[in-house]
Amino acid sequence: MNPRVLVLNGPNLNRLGKREPSVYGRDTLADLEKGLKTLAAELLVEVDFFQSNHEGVLIDRIHLAADEGVDGFLINPGALTHTSVALRDAFLAVNKPFVEIHISNTSAREPFRQESFLSDISSGVLSGFGTFGYHLALRGLLETLRQKR
Amino acid sequence: MNPRVLVLNGPNLNRLGKREPSVYGRDTLADLEKGLKTLAAELLVEVDFFQSNHEGVLIDRIHLAADEGVDGFLINPGALTHTSVALRDAFLAVNKPFVEIHISNTSAREPFRQESFLSDISSGVLSGFGTFGYHLALRGLLETLRQKR
Amino acid sequence: MNPRVLVLNGPNLNRLGKREPSVYGRDTLADLEKGLKTLAAELLVEVDFFQSNHEGVLIDRIHLAADEGVDGFLINPGALTHTSVALRDAFLAVNKPFVEIHISNTSAREPFRQESFLSDISSGVLSGFGTFGYHLALRGLLETLRQKR
Amino acid sequence: MNPRVLVLNGPNLNRLGKREPSVYGRDTLADLEKGLKTLAAELLVEVDFFQSNHEGVLIDRIHLAADEGVDGFLINPGALTHTSVALRDAFLAVNKPFVEIHISNTSAREPFRQESFLSDISSGVLSGFGTFGYHLALRGLLETLRQKR
Amino acid sequence: MNPRVLVLNGPNLNRLGKREPSVYGRDTLADLEKGLKTLAAELLVEVDFFQSNHEGVLIDRIHLAADEGVDGFLINPGALTHTSVALRDAFLAVNKPFVEIHISNTSAREPFRQESFLSDISSGVLSGFGTFGYHLALRGLLETLRQKR
Amino acid sequence: MNPRVLVLNGPNLNRLGKREPSVYGRDTLADLEKGLKTLAAELLVEVDFFQSNHEGVLIDRIHLAADEGVDGFLINPGALTHTSVALRDAFLAVNKPFVEIHISNTSAREPFRQESFLSDISSGVLSGFGTFGYHLALRGLLETLRQKR
Amino acid sequence: MNPRVLVLNGPNLNRLGKREPSVYGRDTLADLEKGLKTLAAELLVEVDFFQSNHEGVLIDRIHLAADEGVDGFLINPGALTHTSVALRDAFLAVNKPFVEIHISNTSAREPFRQESFLSDISSGVLSGFGTFGYHLALRGLLETLRQKR
Amino acid sequence: MNPRVLVLNGPNLNRLGKREPSVYGRDTLADLEKGLKTLAAELLVEVDFFQSNHEGVLIDRIHLAADEGVDGFLINPGALTHTSVALRDAFLAVNKPFVEIHISNTSAREPFRQESFLSDISSGVLSGFGTFGYHLALRGLLETLRQKR
Amino acid sequence: MNPRVLVLNGPNLNRLGKREPSVYGRDTLADLEKGLKTLAAELLVEVDFFQSNHEGVLIDRIHLAADEGVDGFLINPGALTHTSVALRDAFLAVNKPFVEIHISNTSAREPFRQESFLSDISSGVLSGFGTFGYHLALRGLLETLRQKR
Amino acid sequence: MNPRVLVLNGPNLNRLGKREPSVYGRDTLADLEKGLKTLAAELLVEVDFFQSNHEGVLIDRIHLAADEGVDGFLINPGALTHTSVALRDAFLAVNKPFVEIHISNTSAREPFRQESFLSDISSGVLSGFGTFGYHLALRGLLETLRQKR
Amino acid sequence: MNPRVLVLNGPNLNRLGKREPSVYGRDTLADLEKGLKTLAAELLVEVDFFQSNHEGVLIDRIHLAADEGVDGFLINPGALTHTSVALRDAFLAVNKPFVEIHISNTSAREPFRQESFLSDISSGVLSGFGTFGYHLALRGLLETLRQKR
Amino acid sequence: MNPRVLVLNGPNLNRLGKREPSVYGRDTLADLEKGLKTLAAELLVEVDFFQSNHEGVLIDRIHLAADEGVDGFLINPGALTHTSVALRDAFLAVNKPFVEIHISNTSAREPFRQESFLSDISSGVLSGFGTFGYHLALRGLLETLRQKR
Repeated sequence: MNPRVLVLNGPNLNRLGKREPSVYGRDTLADLEKGLKTLAAELLVEVDFFQSNHEGVLIDRIHLAADEGVDGFLINPGALTHTSVALRDAFLAVNKPFVEIHISNTSAREPFRQESFLSDISSGVLSGFGTFGYHLALRGLLETLRQKR
Repeated sequence: MNPRVLVLNGPNLNRLGKREPSVYGRDTLADLEKGLKTLAAELLVEVDFFQSNHEGVLIDRIHLAADEGVDGFLINPGALTHTSVALRDAFLAVNKPFVEIHISNTSAREPFRQESFLSDISSGVLSGFGTFGYHLALRGLLETLRQKR
Repeated sequence: MNPRVLVLNGPNLNRLGKREPSVYGRDTLADLEKGLKTLAAELLVEVDFFQSNHEGVLIDRIHLAADEGVDGFLINPGALTHTSVALRDAFLAVNKPFVEIHISNTSAREPFRQESFLSDISSGVLSGFGTFGYHLALRGLLETLRQKR
Repeated sequence: MNPRVLVLNGPNLNRLGKREPSVYGRDTLADLEKGLKTLAAELLVEVDFFQSNHEGVLIDRIHLAADEGVDGFLINPGALTHTSVALRDAFLAVNKPFVEIHISNTSAREPFRQESFLSDISSGVLSGFGTFGYHLALRGLLETLRQKR
Repeated sequence: MNPRVLVLNGPNLNRLGKREPSVYGRDTLADLEKGLKTLAAELLVEVDFFQSNHEGVLIDRIHLAADEGVDGFLINPGALTHTSVALRDAFLAVNKPFVEIHISNTSAREPFRQESFLSDISSGVLSGFGTFGYHLALRGLLETLRQKR
Repeated sequence: MNPRVLVLNGPNLNRLGKREPSVYGRDTLADLEKGLKTLAAELLVEVDFFQSNHEGVLIDRIHLAADEGVDGFLINPGALTHTSVALRDAFLAVNKPFVEIHISNTSAREPFRQESFLSDISSGVLSGFGTFGYHLALRGLLETLRQKR
Repeated sequence: MNPRVLVLNGPNLNRLGKREPSVYGRDTLADLEKGLKTLAAELLVEVDFFQSNHEGVLIDRIHLAADEGVDGFLINPGALTHTSVALRDAFLAVNKPFVEIHISNTSAREPFRQESFLSDISSGVLSGFGTFGYHLALRGLLETLRQKR
Repeated sequence: MNPRVLVLNGPNLNRLGKREPSVYGRDTLADLEKGLKTLAAELLVEVDFFQSNHEGVLIDRIHLAADEGVDGFLINPGALTHTSVALRDAFLAVNKPFVEIHISNTSAREPFRQESFLSDISSGVLSGFGTFGYHLALRGLLETLRQKR
Repeated sequence: MNPRVLVLNGPNLNRLGKREPSVYGRDTLADLEKGLKTLAAELLVEVDFFQSNHEGVLIDRIHLAADEGVDGFLINPGALTHTSVALRDAFLAVNKPFVEIHISNTSAREPFRQESFLSDISSGVLSGFGTFGYHLALRGLLETLRQKR
Repeated sequence: MNPRVLVLNGPNLNRLGKREPSVYGRDTLADLEKGLKTLAAELLVEVDFFQSNHEGVLIDRIHLAADEGVDGFLINPGALTHTSVALRDAFLAVNKPFVEIHISNTSAREPFRQESFLSDISSGVLSGFGTFGYHLALRGLLETLRQKR
Repeated sequence: MNPRVLVLNGPNLNRLGKREPSVYGRDTLADLEKGLKTLAAELLVEVDFFQSNHEGVLIDRIHLAADEGVDGFLINPGALTHTSVALRDAFLAVNKPFVEIHISNTSAREPFRQESFLSDISSGVLSGFGTFGYHLALRGLLETLRQKR
Repeated sequence: MNPRVLVLNGPNLNRLGKREPSVYGRDTLADLEKGLKTLAAELLVEVDFFQSNHEGVLIDRIHLAADEGVDGFLINPGALTHTSVALRDAFLAVNKPFVEIHISNTSAREPFRQESFLSDISSGVLSGFGTFGYHLALRGLLETLRQKR
């Protein structure tokens, strides 16, 4: 059976393409999802997408996905990266591999963007590759899943 | 009239029993609530229960409870302990006694779990007693209410 | 055409008047909104009001306002001032001028209230003027809008 | 009797208009004083103005004003904001309300401009509104005086 | 056989009732011990009491208790909480469960009272419940012992 | 009745005169006590002396003195200045004025000698005057007692 | 013409496969290079490999590569990530895109491994994907080069 | 010849008696000087007094006093204690003994009042004795001068 | 026309030669100025000299010099280096090149002498060359002016 | 005459062998003393042993030993290493060489075990060699004594 | 077969005897090696020596020694102690016991010499025993090897 | 005999002129050396030049120069300024005067460039004068040598 992956996007990522294009590029979230769907098909993965500006809604969704048998997650937690212990606990609670993605190079931004509550419990982290980072992340997650089998 | 107490559980506590059992034990939230109801009956307290993964929903609930005349709160704020000033402000806003509970011994965990935005305005804090801590907290809150009368 | 301004109030500001009156005064949120509406009429501004205890709902509202062509914001972010990077990102994402208001003098309060994730990207900040601060803020925002034209 | 207000400007504010116009705008101190005088007349306040590059001279002036029965102060302490405990003590010594003004948004500048020795004992603080901030500050101070009566 | 518990009180707790009653209440140490003895009888536990102002004497007593087969400890370490690594090492050395009690809410006091050298190796911690906290602690310790059996 | 003062000396002050004479001078503790007794006679104060290397013994002695009706204390806490919260609590517990003395200028020594757990609750502090500091301290304490009468 | 990429490995990466296999896996450096060569051929890139335990030798090699017209770098700087400003300056000096790779999840390791002197000037960073991370990095660098053309 | 001592008072001490009487007492600077003059006569010392709100004027005065052959200084540097390296350098430059006085117990006040740029180069420091501290300081300075002879 | 340079010396530099000769050497300020005048003549520069112990006076002088058309400054700010944001603002306000000089090697002195509020906005900094540093600074400033032409 | 050495063991070292054997090994204090006595005989040193859980008792013993003419000390201060300034002062007061021993590798333990109040005034420090470290320490102390003769 | 030990000396230790003799003594590296060889012969150990000023060369040598079957290392890493994560990784990579030696008492030196990147992964650390420390270290390493057998 | 000076340049300074010209200017290292040679001839100094990207090679060269009788050094340590304790130790080991040069104004760059391991043991430091700084440094070093004679 093909692996199932849920791609989560956190606060303000619904504005992708409209939001600070010099930082985040001109692709919209829809563009991103379409491109990733193509790659997923190619790699024989089922992908679902979910975006929310609400920490609580994201946590509910992670719980649900785990109950429905998801194999792993890609997540761009946006600003919640730096502030949400609850999101961290959600991943600890469901105990599934996930990859953390940042579109921009967070190391080159404000000091409070240098800390992540997710990185140390993730399978892998990548930042700075623009929306192409989601493609890399999907490949990386699949490799992680492959090695666990 | 019997005192009325609202028992609040924050993010991810709906996963109790399923979530990191080595840290949080094997009791589910339903088990916990049932046990506590029994004790409440014995101690002649009315207890209500509420869990949410959403900071805002918890705040709304605290406001509502205050408007409905609750006497005090037990709260296990989960990850919000360490990040939510808004929850702190909600308790300051309603000005009712509350007891802060942690199932695990937070002192023995990650550094960011050492700080609480609630403890200094609480009636009492306890951690490390597993789900039995809710029983102790209920007794502690009642004693606090008794002394205030 | 008259400028349009959205006045946002964050967590627990629905309790204004009832909440810690020694810190926040005795005006309710409704009083505040009524007074500000009068001033707005005088200054020929259209004002809308929105309060929520939910970070995510505030972010959704900011996005919506931007899509509907708001000219600027007044915001009293309450406790989110000190904890929400997501709110910061929402303002960066919509790229409209906003003024940050604090009813109390935050400098004279707890250390964790000394930091703001919004101030450095705001048009202006003011604190300590009680609910009258909203009046000053509205005048300040209009001046900012006037100079940008 | 009309309230009497002393408007104090600290070091280098005599260079206003000539000094870093991208940060402080093109109005000179004389322009600023003239504009504020007009508003004061409208609001029925007596205003006096004083600028000095000398910390000691500013302190002497604050003492003198208190002895002469000033009702309150507006102060843009310039660089002394961040370094002068003596100025703080002068305000503590005379025990009159004052409003702290910053022309630029100090939150968006060097780290050492993030700290103020005056804010926590002020009636109110505002920054980032350009020279228009003095107008807001005067209105804010009057409201403070009105409420104290 | 009934479990045996040693209740330790550290420096200055011999002054209980006389010492800062607004912080510590009006019960004397004798009152506290008498009340706890009653509860112990009810719960079928043997309790012994020991107070000292000397760190070394407390350590000697912990060693002795361990050699005599104590099942667990309640300890209110007083000021030693924040300064004594030796007390920590004594508990590590005897390897018995203990509960840490604070009469006052230490979170609401001086910064140096926020750190404990004991909490992370304790079975549980509670603070802020006044002398009633010893009752809760005894119940909590018994539950811990029960679960270990 | 003449005021009664207990002069306490902490760890290693029994070595005075023999210990690091370049730091602490050549007077022995006996010399110091003799000189101070003479001054006390002149000022009509009864003085008692006590030295110990044991924190616990000093605390016991403070409790005892309070029970016997001492009016105030002079204390050179030696190294305990920087490490003993228990000594602080002892003074809080007995609630009598005390003056803190340091023979050497602690400001000019190791960083860990810059902090005192006693100063902020003392009536007065002095350091750097050699053993003559005890004379000054006695005069200072008497003035404090005189003003309280 | 095909892009040319130099793959640099820093100190101790010559021990790959032999070194802490629980952290770094069982692939040797030769295995890694062979696998990456295959991918490079597929993606039509020319790759060269270089490993050294000497900071200075790595810097010389970066200079040389730049003079020979390399298009970009992959680098696993090993321990130099956290200590070498000189390596940072080498990349600043040659001004070519590079991707920073870490085999293990550095976020989950010692605190001194949380800082990087390279990340903020890199095109992208990834960590935690094991040796497969080099494959992702190569794809990421190519995308970067493609977008710059 | 009698020793000559200059008594310096820093910023805002001209407001003594009028300024925060709960902190600084009700004696004016004139009262203080008169009382100290009497003691000086008794101890056969010549004392001069000087107060200024200007750091530079105080420094000039210290230089002048040194050129005129002063034997030592008493100084209450007020707020300059915590901010003036120049005052420190003035004392280093003239190389005469001085005693640092604080009327209030600075240890019990704001954190920024815990640091002094003068203490480590002073002959002695005392704080918390009210204006009586000047009497103690004069005695202390004389003892220092006596021992140097 | 020859370039015009103002040489500023801050607090306590009027004591040069008399002040801590082991740190600052035996040349007086007059010697220094005479030597520098000779070099200036040789290099065809007009130099003026100004020393003050008053921060405000130095700022006034900088403003005046700018109004009179000075080309650049040499400044030894003395203790103000580490404390005066106002001096920094004065240089920002007049926007002329200046060189910062320290006679002693400040890196080898107290920690609070390691920070400068001027260095990052200066044309160049030098320390440790004794009074000869003024000669180097003059040459350095001229080179800076030459390159700007 | 043979050198005389006092071997001091601090708090909880009486539990050696029984206490955390994975950290401290299985040798008891008696075993350790016996082994060291044998080595001492071989090296022609007189050794005495002393253990206490009381800081004050250890200080008294150090004073006594100095009065009796001890040549040097070996000390394993246990937990007092990290908390006792008084012990440091005792060694400064008697001014005899001493070697500091830790059985476990303190560098690999809790952060608060990384600081020592004794190391910088010791003749030498060693840690991590188990109880064999006492043998090395004795040899090291003898070499120190030999070189001082 | 006799154990084989490699003795490594880091940067500037080739200057031993010539370099700061008050800190490091007058023995040259050759003297040190000769003395240690004699002890090694006595203890039936084979010792090799290697010194380099190059971090990379030391790492290469550690790898080589491991490949050749060395049993353990003595290392005086000199300045690399405080700066080289790569050296730490080299020891982790070869996984052999090593003892860390410092000739001087590093605890009594500059703050940056208080941290070691090696100590927590070493078998033991010793400092302050001069060149005799190598003798102690060899004995310590042998004991470690003996216990592992 | 003419003084002999070795001019050392650290990592990446071989790229001078090619490397970040906005920061470091357009002169190559060869240009710099040629210009300095001319000045040296004029000042009757013998200068040698050496550049390396290897810390160890620079240390070896410093040792060699000392053995060959060099009188002093100019050094631009580049990135090693901020990271190399070994280079510091090399200068301490050879005990010759040296001047530290930075082409750019390091105070205006990244925080990690604010610290130097060399400055406090140097004869003098200068930064911000571009390559002309080497000329000033040579003059400064000669003055230092002249005064030592």
